[in-house]
Amino acid sequence: MDNLYAQLFDCGCIKFGEFKLKSGIMSPVYVDFRTLVTYPEALRSVAKAMLVVMKGLSYDRVAGIPYAGLPLGVAVSLEGNVPMLYPRKEVKSYGTAKLIEGGYNPGETVVVIDDIITDGASKIEAIEPLKDAGLIVKDVVIVLDREQGGAAKLAEAGYTLHSVGTLSQVLESLVRQGKVSEEKRDEVARFIAEHQFK
Amino acid sequence: MDNLYAQLFDCGCIKFGEFKLKSGIMSPVYVDFRTLVTYPEALRSVAKAMLVVMKGLSYDRVAGIPYAGLPLGVAVSLEGNVPMLYPRKEVKSYGTAKLIEGGYNPGETVVVIDDIITDGASKIEAIEPLKDAGLIVKDVVIVLDREQGGAAKLAEAGYTLHSVGTLSQVLESLVRQGKVSEEKRDEVARFIAEHQFK
Repeated sequence: MDNLYAQLFDCGCIKFGEFKLKSGIMSPVYVDFRTLVTYPEALRSVAKAMLVVMKGLSYDRVAGIPYAGLPLGVAVSLEGNVPMLYPRKEVKSYGTAKLIEGGYNPGETVVVIDDIITDGASKIEAIEPLKDAGLIVKDVVIVLDREQGGAAKLAEAGYTLHSVGTLSQVLESLVRQGKVSEEKRDEVARFIAEHQFK
Repeated sequence: MDNLYAQLFDCGCIKFGEFKLKSGIMSPVYVDFRTLVTYPEALRSVAKAMLVVMKGLSYDRVAGIPYAGLPLGVAVSLEGNVPMLYPRKEVKSYGTAKLIEGGYNPGETVVVIDDIITDGASKIEAIEPLKDAGLIVKDVVIVLDREQGGAAKLAEAGYTLHSVGTLSQVLESLVRQGKVSEEKRDEVARFIAEHQFK
């Protein structure tokens, strides 16, 4: 996975510095896969890696979570020839008004596709309309697990998290490749250990 | 283009019946490319057709307009190896808050990618944040022109519309392929003629 992690670092999907999180907390690492659309080759590599993770799973469709999960979902769908759907962030009030775009049949199993997981809350929220529509969700496939308790939160809600890699694995790989210092790795590891969601 | 139009019809992207439009008007035709994500092969065919339309244009990046234009933009980006960006429908208030996701440099030219055009208003609205960010927009590439005045509206605003096909072309093709009756074609043509946006 060294190549893929180097690609993600070079694309600016994983940045080191000082970043303000949603909670107001300052983080030494910022992971942002929305920028991945700038690099179609990297997006394709990530999609291929996600399809490898999905090999053991059984599913009818993939569901990309807007926004970051949408391009990932499309790339996985095109690369793996899997039908895709997505829950909208807001509902249209005209035409064929829907909460979910893309075809599906109730009772089908969908794998949820997204970029990262922090505390897992946004995943559980995004899965709600899929379940309300009669779809079965068992697995969530992401690119990067920040290892801050998200996997456990999903497990409590009945979902299994599968990630291409964890933040520790990415850090170790980047240190090995001389792209991140050991000091920075340790600083990020401390931050993650100190910021666990229970 | 017969194959592509048949594919779009079979996918349910173009439906005939009675549909309530945003304006409250009942339409005999409903065009909805959001369902295209259900059919990765058709999505890839559409992306290839859009890249053919884009051949004469010069651009640095493509901009997909959420939601329908986003999967189309990703497919064009992957198929043509072109960097993509997209304007968000709402702005995040934390992290690296942005109106536009994906990398770009002011002064670069972007081609706007979307599914259809009706009166052109939503295109002009979606282009605003791109121009505010210093990007140059000259061309808008869509799959289907409903021929209700959108191209003229865009031209007035300084943009050139390019479409894979027009609704008339699609109708003629579907009649030729025995997928739509001549009566339905005439009904749709009357509707379009009677509902022009000035």
